[in-house]
Amino acid sequence: MNTEPPATPHPFDEATRLEAIGPADQGRWRGQASPAYWNMVGPFGGITAATVMQGLMRHPALLGEPVSITVNFVAPLGAQPFELQLRPVRTNRSTQHWTLDITQTDDAGTQGLVMTGTVFTGIRRPTWSQLDHPRPVVTLPEDVTWVSALPPVEWVHRYDIHAVEGGMPQPWSGHGESSRSRVWMRDRPQRPLDFPSLLAMSDFFYPRIWLRRGVWVAAGTVSMTVYFHASAPELQAVGSDFVLGQAEAQVFHQGFFDQTAQLWSRDGHLLVTTHQIVYYKD
Amino acid sequence: MNTEPPATPHPFDEATRLEAIGPADQGRWRGQASPAYWNMVGPFGGITAATVMQGLMRHPALLGEPVSITVNFVAPLGAQPFELQLRPVRTNRSTQHWTLDITQTDDAGTQGLVMTGTVFTGIRRPTWSQLDHPRPVVTLPEDVTWVSALPPVEWVHRYDIHAVEGGMPQPWSGHGESSRSRVWMRDRPQRPLDFPSLLAMSDFFYPRIWLRRGVWVAAGTVSMTVYFHASAPELQAVGSDFVLGQAEAQVFHQGFFDQTAQLWSRDGHLLVTTHQIVYYKD
Repeated sequence: MNTEPPATPHPFDEATRLEAIGPADQGRWRGQASPAYWNMVGPFGGITAATVMQGLMRHPALLGEPVSITVNFVAPLGAQPFELQLRPVRTNRSTQHWTLDITQTDDAGTQGLVMTGTVFTGIRRPTWSQLDHPRPVVTLPEDVTWVSALPPVEWVHRYDIHAVEGGMPQPWSGHGESSRSRVWMRDRPQRPLDFPSLLAMSDFFYPRIWLRRGVWVAAGTVSMTVYFHASAPELQAVGSDFVLGQAEAQVFHQGFFDQTAQLWSRDGHLLVTTHQIVYYKD
Repeated sequence: MNTEPPATPHPFDEATRLEAIGPADQGRWRGQASPAYWNMVGPFGGITAATVMQGLMRHPALLGEPVSITVNFVAPLGAQPFELQLRPVRTNRSTQHWTLDITQTDDAGTQGLVMTGTVFTGIRRPTWSQLDHPRPVVTLPEDVTWVSALPPVEWVHRYDIHAVEGGMPQPWSGHGESSRSRVWMRDRPQRPLDFPSLLAMSDFFYPRIWLRRGVWVAAGTVSMTVYFHASAPELQAVGSDFVLGQAEAQVFHQGFFDQTAQLWSRDGHLLVTTHQIVYYKD
């Protein structure tokens, strides 16, 4: 008889926990946002996306590994339980396509859609490979002495963060010259990297407009697309080490801007390229 | 009585023509790929995406203008008629979210899914704006004397194309140094720019692996996301002039590479930022 107490789950696994509604191949799950990953007015978008990925990884019909995911934040997610539905809609020989949605019943009893999206998974195989966007040469995380300001939200404390460029403006100077940030990040406490955690990190960066303008304005991600360029064994090889993220905007125009980012392992593997479109006011 | 013969529709409008199935607010349309935009083994992906956009623009429930669209090419589209379904799934005060799919019945009578996707539309308003990725200074289309090679497919003849960098390798040299192309393009014959035609142009670029390796390998777009950074009046201002496109890959790894691109008007407005994930063999 094993009398040891159960290990305390990692906050990330706690926050992305799902309970199956019916048989697993129905792809219906119940989840609930965790206060540990709370953002301003709802959970950190990255953790919600990561919860979808947890469901996907546990679906018995899954073919291959995640290659591409698009999630749309169509309405605010509240603190009450939500329901995730994942559907494999087309399975080919080595690729598979999924649709996803999250619905939530509000306090008035009305069920509403809060997330839509699509996922593409595939079987990876050895091919000619080429990295044309190498990891920038920056100070290693152990040697970063600068402590950058952080947004006053809970979820940022779930990461070890060593910014090497483009930390939160402090004070808000009212001007800026670049929207680029470079940041070493890892889960806190440390946790082996996997597709859900890498997806959460893809949404790590605060709105580029804050940095570019040196002004705080209301802003929020509307849609995010993440391309994975690593296999599960390659993520395992990263372990719980830091990854380097870089984010930048190309254009701010009439209420929306884009945000492109990359995540590299310390040894220079480009794990993720990602893009999002962000709403901003003023 | 008007006895003039009806004007011949532009090939683009012909190719993206949709016939409503039932009331327009049902969002169900019938279409058919045009031989005029044929690619290797099916229609040019951009024209199929543009057809979706035609349906969206005609939907009576549409709020605002297209801001973001993701389309997934989940199976080959054949020459027989197909059915497009567009659904407004969440309408907020100034934004709206859509899902889309295309199904097609094959020769054996089996109905299959060939495209999935999501769209986000919004009401644009004047805000602080900033362009951080200006149009590259290149030879103007009128002054391009070099005639680049083109893929041996029909749809490329539907465009006036003046490549200034990164044309199709000719001959296939077996090596390359960069995946970047810069190309002036416009519809042929000329046609005023709109969201459908801009979406088609977003998928203009041939697979980056051909350029980077100098080798032809089987490759095809699996998922494409397009962010629009212009309003309808701004597109009207471009008229039927050339736009400059630039495309580049960041990484090729285990059967998939990314492709990022921008489209600018001649006067430097960044109209589109777009990204796709492309399958390749070997």
